[in-house]
Amino acid sequence: MAANSPFISDVPAAEALAAWRDACADAGCPARVEAVSVALESAVGRVTAESVWARWSSPAFDSAGMDGIAVRAADTVRATETNPVLIDPEDFWAVDTGDPVPVGYDAVVMREHVHLTASGQAELRAAVPPYQHVRSIGEDISANELLLPEGHRLRPVDVAAAAAAGATELVVRRQPRVVIIPTGDEIRPIGSEPKPGEILDTNSLMLAAQAREVGCDAEVTGIVADDPQLITEALIAAASDADLVILIAGSSAGRDDYTARVVQSAGTLAVHGVAVRPGHPVVLGVVDGPVATPVLGAPGYPVSAALTFDIFAAPLLASLEGAAPRERATTKARLARKLASAIGSDDWVRVRLGEVEGEVVATPLPRGAGVLTSLVRADGLLVVPSGQEGHHAGEQVDVELLRGLGEVGRTIVAIGSHDLILDVAASRLRADDPLISLASSNVGSLGGLVAVRDGLCHLAGSHLLEPESGEYTLPYVDRLLAGGPEIAVIRLVHREQGLLVASGNPTGIAGIDDLAQPGLRYVNRQRGAGTRALLDFELDRRGIDPSSISGYSREEHTHLAVAAAVAAGRADTGLGIRAAAQAFGLDFIPVAWEPYDLVLRASVADDDLLAPLWALMARPDFQAEVERLGGYSCEEMGRRIR
Amino acid sequence: MAANSPFISDVPAAEALAAWRDACADAGCPARVEAVSVALESAVGRVTAESVWARWSSPAFDSAGMDGIAVRAADTVRATETNPVLIDPEDFWAVDTGDPVPVGYDAVVMREHVHLTASGQAELRAAVPPYQHVRSIGEDISANELLLPEGHRLRPVDVAAAAAAGATELVVRRQPRVVIIPTGDEIRPIGSEPKPGEILDTNSLMLAAQAREVGCDAEVTGIVADDPQLITEALIAAASDADLVILIAGSSAGRDDYTARVVQSAGTLAVHGVAVRPGHPVVLGVVDGPVATPVLGAPGYPVSAALTFDIFAAPLLASLEGAAPRERATTKARLARKLASAIGSDDWVRVRLGEVEGEVVATPLPRGAGVLTSLVRADGLLVVPSGQEGHHAGEQVDVELLRGLGEVGRTIVAIGSHDLILDVAASRLRADDPLISLASSNVGSLGGLVAVRDGLCHLAGSHLLEPESGEYTLPYVDRLLAGGPEIAVIRLVHREQGLLVASGNPTGIAGIDDLAQPGLRYVNRQRGAGTRALLDFELDRRGIDPSSISGYSREEHTHLAVAAAVAAGRADTGLGIRAAAQAFGLDFIPVAWEPYDLVLRASVADDDLLAPLWALMARPDFQAEVERLGGYSCEEMGRRIR
Repeated sequence: MAANSPFISDVPAAEALAAWRDACADAGCPARVEAVSVALESAVGRVTAESVWARWSSPAFDSAGMDGIAVRAADTVRATETNPVLIDPEDFWAVDTGDPVPVGYDAVVMREHVHLTASGQAELRAAVPPYQHVRSIGEDISANELLLPEGHRLRPVDVAAAAAAGATELVVRRQPRVVIIPTGDEIRPIGSEPKPGEILDTNSLMLAAQAREVGCDAEVTGIVADDPQLITEALIAAASDADLVILIAGSSAGRDDYTARVVQSAGTLAVHGVAVRPGHPVVLGVVDGPVATPVLGAPGYPVSAALTFDIFAAPLLASLEGAAPRERATTKARLARKLASAIGSDDWVRVRLGEVEGEVVATPLPRGAGVLTSLVRADGLLVVPSGQEGHHAGEQVDVELLRGLGEVGRTIVAIGSHDLILDVAASRLRADDPLISLASSNVGSLGGLVAVRDGLCHLAGSHLLEPESGEYTLPYVDRLLAGGPEIAVIRLVHREQGLLVASGNPTGIAGIDDLAQPGLRYVNRQRGAGTRALLDFELDRRGIDPSSISGYSREEHTHLAVAAAVAAGRADTGLGIRAAAQAFGLDFIPVAWEPYDLVLRASVADDDLLAPLWALMARPDFQAEVERLGGYSCEEMGRRIR
Repeated sequence: MAANSPFISDVPAAEALAAWRDACADAGCPARVEAVSVALESAVGRVTAESVWARWSSPAFDSAGMDGIAVRAADTVRATETNPVLIDPEDFWAVDTGDPVPVGYDAVVMREHVHLTASGQAELRAAVPPYQHVRSIGEDISANELLLPEGHRLRPVDVAAAAAAGATELVVRRQPRVVIIPTGDEIRPIGSEPKPGEILDTNSLMLAAQAREVGCDAEVTGIVADDPQLITEALIAAASDADLVILIAGSSAGRDDYTARVVQSAGTLAVHGVAVRPGHPVVLGVVDGPVATPVLGAPGYPVSAALTFDIFAAPLLASLEGAAPRERATTKARLARKLASAIGSDDWVRVRLGEVEGEVVATPLPRGAGVLTSLVRADGLLVVPSGQEGHHAGEQVDVELLRGLGEVGRTIVAIGSHDLILDVAASRLRADDPLISLASSNVGSLGGLVAVRDGLCHLAGSHLLEPESGEYTLPYVDRLLAGGPEIAVIRLVHREQGLLVASGNPTGIAGIDDLAQPGLRYVNRQRGAGTRALLDFELDRRGIDPSSISGYSREEHTHLAVAAAVAAGRADTGLGIRAAAQAFGLDFIPVAWEPYDLVLRASVADDDLLAPLWALMARPDFQAEVERLGGYSCEEMGRRIR
């Protein structure tokens, strides 16, 4: 026990990792997991625990490199085109590729260059240099040669080469074993229907899968209640049969203090809190026991938990195997918008990547530690180091790739207003051709037009109403995109907007005029969203003051989020599309039909990348599927209106 | 049966793959393997067979984003630093991060900003905007939102997000099943001791591991003899229970004709021979049956077999799962030397990569289809397209990465003369620190000095004797590296060179003077090798004409290859180091002691990357290990002689 050991906090990740490693070494944690001898086919993916030297040579004999005949080069020296040499049948041997070259013979002549006479002699019309088409013994591998060093993660070609050199088993590190302990009174197993305040144990599932992905054996224990005594017992029990224990701290802000105290009481607390966002409340330490065991206290927020695994667990586990951690490829990308970052922490920003007219562009995704979908949707990670305040829009940045650049290059990037149809189209395109992706980011109609202007996306969904003219989208295109490259505007659908209300319309509202009723709770869309512009237009022509509407300042970013708030009883109504009401079983009070268009550079519209989208939009079955969602008319789908 | 269907040959890889896919579709092969519903933890690595839509929102309720108290924002509007507002206990709720915000409340104040009075009132000194520190319902995921499209390969974060959105199972494609059939009278199972002319079945092991690596289930059948009837029967049996059959054609050049005829008789032969090197004799077709099954006839040369899997099997298997094939990252690199390539085939050249003074340099490895170690040692693949004759030295090329660039950057690159000590050092460095690699390529002493001059390596092993002066290495450094950056020369060892002969010295030779004996078979080293220079020096001072030595023109590239040739009885003697004789149990006739030095730029010598090597060379245990190899003296190890 080292209950009073000093620990460090709020230090950079590299320093924290080093302090953890030192604490592990001091406490006597094994530097490597044990070496075991395994059959070749079980060795793939494992790490060599000793050097692999060739037992024998491959090929193990001088062999023919071609189908033909083996000869003595000296017998052929006088052969020319005009004066062929004839070799008697007892002085050459027919050989196939791979056959041994018989003793006394030193060259092979290709079958195509040999003419056999009626008497069975071989007629050669050119002299043959010694060792022609002979694969020397050991051409591939010499006996006693170093084939693979210790600490090498074995791939299929490695085990095949080891087999060729005489190995039947290899000495490798066994898989490290990771035990994961979920904790928290509010945590419920996956499969339960969570009540308000309860959270599903998705972190254990994720961390176990991450551990398996880096080649470990992983086990998840039962959920442990928020009781230091119980958690300590669980920790000590897990440590007795693990190479690393991960204790998931629950999502409450103070929970890591809890974990830290438990770790300190069970061994050594090395680090409490690191200068990484998201991920700050990390606990690193060691559990005492007959064999000391490293313990990682992971934060409960899922993005923090996932990144914590990458930053701390993965390098430690790789060391235990004696190998370098897997690394991600990187790319340069142009940053789509300004990115502010607080000094003092490495900021791990998830970004979406797109290749637009030959340039890779990175768009930051939501940064909350609880927004797991930001990792799901991310194509890459951009780390803003702790000493830096962020990046300007347009700056070139280095991005760690989570998807291949080729796949990024085959992705249609939509930034702008979001509509369900884009999701339906994304799924249909992918189902038809796995090589095509359509990724859409929701920043509202106005944000989409700016993204088109700045070359950050292929297309923008837009349904922006100009109050003065009552016209949609085109006036904004004229204003925002004038002077740039030629712009195309393609009609996707007409769709119906209205007020979403709970089933049965309990507040009894009839339309926009009722939104200022006292006590009515509205939920709004963000500035720049077409639906927000529509609301403002409708309020303005009725002379209703927005500030009289309770909840006008509560902003959600999608139709579905508005519908979800109404469905959960957190708001009484909000403006949105009929399809969103239908998805949540809400009632719908119609307000207006509006066109929803795709805005893009004309050059991009002609790009091969977009052809499958245009083809899909022309398909009657797709149009029928869209109209079944409710509140859509596909009559003009695909019409180029500019 | 479509025995007379036309097939294409010698076409580019992309065209061959397309023809194969068309033939599969025409014959009625399923486009995708079946969809199955699996538990979340089993879904990682699998591909979604349908879109995943969120069942419920996450968070499923408005929740506190901080530990603190939930309040009504309206109650706080008049609070200022000088005029705090007091909120009664019944008008606020203590909440932890993640707790639901109670109905009627709309903001959270951080614990640190709340002062509780003696009467239990909360004292606030600033107004709170509505929705402050409230995580909205659906902040991460909205119910009914598209979470993952069809055709998405599931990662740990994906299944965690699906779980958070209410999924307990996911509908995914089952693993494709690959059955591999090794054929050939000369093929022996791994574990046997191959006799001359026999070849171990390493290809099946490799191809099965490759199939498993891309997520398939793989099985290898018994080895089938070279009998068309037996192979046809094995093929049809395998096809009845596989999504892809791989028939390994044996290594003989004519064997693919065999495979092609078998495939044609069992269904459709689509492609016979592709414009890819190595890999040309590929057979692509379909086996008829109740359900038609694709068949790939893989060449028997191991490099061809491995690349054939990557180029043809991997994309087909990815399609069967409805996903994009895994892709490799790429890098730009400077080509170390001229690379010639025949027009008419895509040339897949294995390259070693090194980062020397900030620049990534690619050195081509041996190109033979039988040299599997060229794939083992490769850091990348450089494809010279069929229309191109190659590249100039120094040209910038694109390389597909087989190792991470970070790992490449941590690799000490040695190009030059090879000595066993470099292998021993590589293993020891790696064992001590898994992040360090030492990769050595053997091009002889002279080639090494040229590589140093051209900035292609960190260091070159050299033992070049100048006949005129009898001095080693330094005269060549002066001649070749004059005028460039400052050069350091560091002594590695002295080592003993001599003639390697079979145990008991059956030919009874006593030394260099006996090499011209009639009937004696010599095996030489390649031009530019220090050992060749030593032989030439010794012959010259004795006045022996090299052309009088039988086998003078037979060149091997390493000491071990020379020793292997002698050990196998393919040659009577060759010049080499004592350690090589010792490794093969050969007798050794001493000729000379010589210094073996490391030549490098002085700036590189001071690079942190090399520090572990210098430290290792100073360690007595390492020196002792080297001297145990025999024929080495470490007395001057590490001494900088320039």
